Amino acid sequence: MGKRKYVGLKQEFIDAKEKVTGQANYLDDLSFPGMLYGKILRSPHPHAQIKAINISQALKLPGVKGVITADDCPSNYFGLEIADVTMLAKDKVRYVGDEVAAVAATSEEIAQAALSLIKVDYEVLRPVTNVEESVALGALLVHEDKIGNVAKTYHFERGNVDEDFVRCDYVFEEKFSTSRVSACYMEPFGAIARWEHDGRLTIWTGLQAVFHGRNEIAKALGISPALINIKEPFIGGGFGGKIWIRNFHPIVAVLAKKTGCPVKIVLTREEEMLTTRPRVAPKMRLKLGMMQDGTMVAKQAEILADNGAYTWAASKILLNMSMRTDCLYRFKSTRTDAKLVYTNLIPTSGFRGYGNSQMHFALESMIDICCRKIGLDPVQVRLKNASRQGDTTLHGWKLRSCGLAECIEKAAQAIKVNRLPAEAQNGRIKRGIGLACMNHVSGNRGGDNFDGSSAMVRFHEDGKLMVYSGEADLGQGCKTVFAQIAAETMGMPVDHIFVMPLDTDISPFCYGTYSSRVTTVGGRAVQLAVQKVKDQLLQLAAKKMGVDSGRLEINDDVVYNRMDPGHKYSLAEICKYGIRTREAAELTAYITYDPPTQGNDSTGYGDYSSAYTYGAHGVEVEVDTVTGQVRVLRIVTAHDVGAVINPQGVFGQISGGVAQGIGWTLYENQIQKNGIPQNASLRNYILMTIKDMPKIEPILVETNDPVGPFGAKGIGEPTLIPTAPAIANAIQDAVGIRIHDLPITAEKMFWALQNHVKEGEK
Amino acid sequence: MGKRKYVGLKQEFIDAKEKVTGQANYLDDLSFPGMLYGKILRSPHPHAQIKAINISQALKLPGVKGVITADDCPSNYFGLEIADVTMLAKDKVRYVGDEVAAVAATSEEIAQAALSLIKVDYEVLRPVTNVEESVALGALLVHEDKIGNVAKTYHFERGNVDEDFVRCDYVFEEKFSTSRVSACYMEPFGAIARWEHDGRLTIWTGLQAVFHGRNEIAKALGISPALINIKEPFIGGGFGGKIWIRNFHPIVAVLAKKTGCPVKIVLTREEEMLTTRPRVAPKMRLKLGMMQDGTMVAKQAEILADNGAYTWAASKILLNMSMRTDCLYRFKSTRTDAKLVYTNLIPTSGFRGYGNSQMHFALESMIDICCRKIGLDPVQVRLKNASRQGDTTLHGWKLRSCGLAECIEKAAQAIKVNRLPAEAQNGRIKRGIGLACMNHVSGNRGGDNFDGSSAMVRFHEDGKLMVYSGEADLGQGCKTVFAQIAAETMGMPVDHIFVMPLDTDISPFCYGTYSSRVTTVGGRAVQLAVQKVKDQLLQLAAKKMGVDSGRLEINDDVVYNRMDPGHKYSLAEICKYGIRTREAAELTAYITYDPPTQGNDSTGYGDYSSAYTYGAHGVEVEVDTVTGQVRVLRIVTAHDVGAVINPQGVFGQISGGVAQGIGWTLYENQIQKNGIPQNASLRNYILMTIKDMPKIEPILVETNDPVGPFGAKGIGEPTLIPTAPAIANAIQDAVGIRIHDLPITAEKMFWALQNHVKEGEK
Repeated sequence: MGKRKYVGLKQEFIDAKEKVTGQANYLDDLSFPGMLYGKILRSPHPHAQIKAINISQALKLPGVKGVITADDCPSNYFGLEIADVTMLAKDKVRYVGDEVAAVAATSEEIAQAALSLIKVDYEVLRPVTNVEESVALGALLVHEDKIGNVAKTYHFERGNVDEDFVRCDYVFEEKFSTSRVSACYMEPFGAIARWEHDGRLTIWTGLQAVFHGRNEIAKALGISPALINIKEPFIGGGFGGKIWIRNFHPIVAVLAKKTGCPVKIVLTREEEMLTTRPRVAPKMRLKLGMMQDGTMVAKQAEILADNGAYTWAASKILLNMSMRTDCLYRFKSTRTDAKLVYTNLIPTSGFRGYGNSQMHFALESMIDICCRKIGLDPVQVRLKNASRQGDTTLHGWKLRSCGLAECIEKAAQAIKVNRLPAEAQNGRIKRGIGLACMNHVSGNRGGDNFDGSSAMVRFHEDGKLMVYSGEADLGQGCKTVFAQIAAETMGMPVDHIFVMPLDTDISPFCYGTYSSRVTTVGGRAVQLAVQKVKDQLLQLAAKKMGVDSGRLEINDDVVYNRMDPGHKYSLAEICKYGIRTREAAELTAYITYDPPTQGNDSTGYGDYSSAYTYGAHGVEVEVDTVTGQVRVLRIVTAHDVGAVINPQGVFGQISGGVAQGIGWTLYENQIQKNGIPQNASLRNYILMTIKDMPKIEPILVETNDPVGPFGAKGIGEPTLIPTAPAIANAIQDAVGIRIHDLPITAEKMFWALQNHVKEGEK
Repeated sequence: MGKRKYVGLKQEFIDAKEKVTGQANYLDDLSFPGMLYGKILRSPHPHAQIKAINISQALKLPGVKGVITADDCPSNYFGLEIADVTMLAKDKVRYVGDEVAAVAATSEEIAQAALSLIKVDYEVLRPVTNVEESVALGALLVHEDKIGNVAKTYHFERGNVDEDFVRCDYVFEEKFSTSRVSACYMEPFGAIARWEHDGRLTIWTGLQAVFHGRNEIAKALGISPALINIKEPFIGGGFGGKIWIRNFHPIVAVLAKKTGCPVKIVLTREEEMLTTRPRVAPKMRLKLGMMQDGTMVAKQAEILADNGAYTWAASKILLNMSMRTDCLYRFKSTRTDAKLVYTNLIPTSGFRGYGNSQMHFALESMIDICCRKIGLDPVQVRLKNASRQGDTTLHGWKLRSCGLAECIEKAAQAIKVNRLPAEAQNGRIKRGIGLACMNHVSGNRGGDNFDGSSAMVRFHEDGKLMVYSGEADLGQGCKTVFAQIAAETMGMPVDHIFVMPLDTDISPFCYGTYSSRVTTVGGRAVQLAVQKVKDQLLQLAAKKMGVDSGRLEINDDVVYNRMDPGHKYSLAEICKYGIRTREAAELTAYITYDPPTQGNDSTGYGDYSSAYTYGAHGVEVEVDTVTGQVRVLRIVTAHDVGAVINPQGVFGQISGGVAQGIGWTLYENQIQKNGIPQNASLRNYILMTIKDMPKIEPILVETNDPVGPFGAKGIGEPTLIPTAPAIANAIQDAVGIRIHDLPITAEKMFWALQNHVKEGEK
């Protein structure tokens, strides 16, 4: 392998210019002749019976072209694992924001006005507003057929936990919880639906996983998936919030059918805050058994997680929460009992980290707590127990690459360098450092026994290469990564490669953008497809040049004879030679790649991700002991990325993950009172701002994973995961206070500092 | 092979409902936000120097967003074989209709008004208005660099013509000519251009050959073809007139670039009459040598053909005119000298038959003339000389199938049955019958050494099949034919198959709809691609069912074990099993098919079409000896179609070819006076109407060609070709008058009848 020219080198995102000049078309930039605007009437009650709906006044409003209620919709239940939702509420609403009716009108304003003319007669019921209430004896039922309000339970056990705890020198037990937070992507979610004259349905929408989405919409509408064509415009972020369809997807299709016109629905920010499925919020009880020398032996967890009113991905997320951290260290035994329960709150679902982040907060906080109690160095304990390359973990993951130890060492080292004095302003400001580790996946052989990706590549007669993938670019830059992979594999410049827009009628079948899988699995498929078409091209060139194809190389768009570099042809010449001649060259390759993993058995044991990522964040914080305010000063982010494809892209993922991680840790929280959201607006839902951003010191560890393309692994989610516990650990280092429940707001710190002083005074 | 279920059976066109309900979107139905309307200023002079163009007043008209002249356009010459045209005239205009300037405005009306505000200062030159003037010594030059006004010449010779003529019992010589006629498709041609934010150009247009078109537009604009994406809406007919781009294609792209908006140009009917390249109009001198027994020995032709002002396909058409009829019969020797010359008239180009029809008129008229002179039965002479299956013709065609003799016999037989009395109304009406033969191609290994087609097929996870082809459906029904071929090959119903719209970014590379090649070559590619994906599917099914794939059959969407028909799965089940599992099935196949032909050598010798079609039309006419009016009463159309895929489609092609053939023979003619068109309007350009349609008696001969899919050959052009000479022969049979020059108008017949009477009186 020679020196790389495209992979790992600086490469501007191929769509950067369109985006920064405002020319890129996002969903709301699209418009079609005769298009109507849809709006959805939502429940103001967390729990109520629908007695009657009267749409007659709304229908009379000039400009209103259609009003639908559950009576106008297919009554199919849909959802992922547990189908418990209909597109419009039938007899009952179950959370504030639940969809009740929808309107299509000639303008957004008219549609909005029409909503207020729809009269719904509710019989208000008492809501279930937290998980404790949900599981209490004699609790109200959110769904009449879901006994005990339980959506899903898990039990996992490896080794003999009880025996191991008995033998441990130390056993500690703590409780943790994390909060409901919203993905808050820049671009509100939405869709345009148009029924075509041939009876098929076109939907423009920015889904992260279009082929899953196509199936779900088909299920909701009761039609065959191939009758639906999803086309993706540019997408302004997803972070897990756009993996799965929302109710508005089938709703907009029904509105379009009813009115005979294309209909657009784009959520307002308030609707996003009300209905974008937030991160699953669990209560976690954790028990950790350690030996005097720092060996971590046994781990036990109990989880009670909030599903909200309907089940989306929370059941899958609970699985990740239950298992993944068990593979971060070389535990001898582990046991988890997890339960997902209904409440009358917004349905929870996936958000960067997908359950793994929550348990990381618990475990990585716990390790520091235990080490402090025993008097061990938490960095050394982590190093001692770290999973390593070649390991098969407790749950059967095969670590084909693992740079955890190197990440710990480098992050611990770097965060100490240049650290500020432990105190300032006469002791008012206290500073501390902390570290936390993480692991995650690059793919997920989860529900189906498939975790692959397909790619198609095609040469045009002018030697330009088209790349088709079904993986979505949400802004993270996979189009650029695919172009770089194709460029490097073929030996041609990135700007001669076109990565085509996502369209389910055309793009090869893929699973989509989640589980940090796109670079690894999608990129690998692209690499293999390009290699396949390269073989076709070299065969052609060999024929044209009268040279064995083994002697040919391609560099910078030119095929040449290695033994006689002057003997050469451009790719355009070879393509022209192949395509419009007797050669009848296809110069098109299609490939479906499924990584060499086995998936889980019925106990959840098995190697189920193409690759596994590991990392460590070192954090320096300062705490204002008067106000309780925490500031993150610096963050060292050491990640085993396998190999870097696009340096700027990796740094973008790190910056974004750190920002969202800090937000989750210190600021964000969806507050409700009696089931009524209190801060469903960016006015009072506190996101971090650019001023809160610490200095980031990225450390990239390249372990060259054997599965990923050019050795690369996913970096999308990992950058968020260790941020919260690292901050919590640094806070304890600074002021000796341990916060077990996110977010660590200034108010919470203020009262903790007050109590801490009092305890100290005792 | 079992009984066929889809191929050869009645099948409604899959897009019939959309079309007859007016829902299908043709180009002019499309609209995009911010779209402007383009109009082209055309030369009113057949030949003039442009001294100056002043656009300042046009630019001031409110609503005008851009005005372009040659100065705003890339100055590349483009065209097929001979690049002699620029998108807007530079210094000189060369025919009435030549493009001088273009406007984009917010409405068609404003754009039209703006044209009249553009002031062009012309210095009028004397025009060259016919081929004789063009080749006369000292003729004015249409293009300064084209000496003698010659665009192209051909000389072909096989055997020893001169020697053979000496040995023949009879040698006759006659002159023939055919006229300029317009394709007159229902939907005027046009295009919408939009420059995308990534710098690529999207063009919506109904081209017959999109990949050729993409290259030509790229050449005109001076950009790489892969930067252009051509998308096809529904198309309302082409007949050869939409194979190649027009000047408006690059013009609309330049207007869109200049204004930064999408721009639409749709030609008016008058613009169509002025600029749609008409059928090449030749003067033909034909010499035929026969033996007493009717053996046709030698043929010699001289052709002087009118190219018009610029060269489009006329040079290729001249080639067909020069050669094809030589392969209709078993001539011993043949020689053709052909010359294509410039005039200041509309550039001529392709129209159903593509040159072959013109020489058929000459030769098939000539045979009847000769037979009458010698006293032979022209039907028997044709039968005696007919080319037959297994022949290699004078020009090297290999006749893998040929049903000519059967067509002659059946047509001759059928036209005699039920014929009306030879006279009516006391001799005022005279009736006669005539017959003429034809041959044609199903494909054309012409310019490039490729004559293939590509197809991609893909199963979706619900078992529905998508078919992608780059061949265009102009209304002739190839989408339906492809769906039937796919259905038959796979064993699934037509309505589970989606034939996707044509889009150069997606559709596989194909040559397009011309040379009657789409069913044969395009259909074969579809058949092979479906067979390939079927093999993938059967392998999967074999695995799932634990049965050798050789035992499996597919019928009506179900895969079953031939030995145990109860053991079965639906295609949907097999696809689901393959796609979302460890099988990682691609279920996608791409194929490029090039028929097993060799192409021509430098002398034009060689087997260059996938298949060759033969046929014969028998016609019964009546002539009103007072008015000269000719009426076609009945037409028997016997065609060797290889095999029928869609019976209705074949009959549609027959009806259309007959109608256009009668129009060409009796009515249509583009008249000019000093280079100025006199009937550029459907008011005075006489098309035949439904009232002129004769009763059609179709006879389909199935020779099961070994190359075509299920044995099928092309039927698009053949149905027009023998119509004109058959009518001319029937006229001679009715009234003893031979017309050598098309069209055979009532006026022409009137004078001929007058002269005939006078000659009779002498």
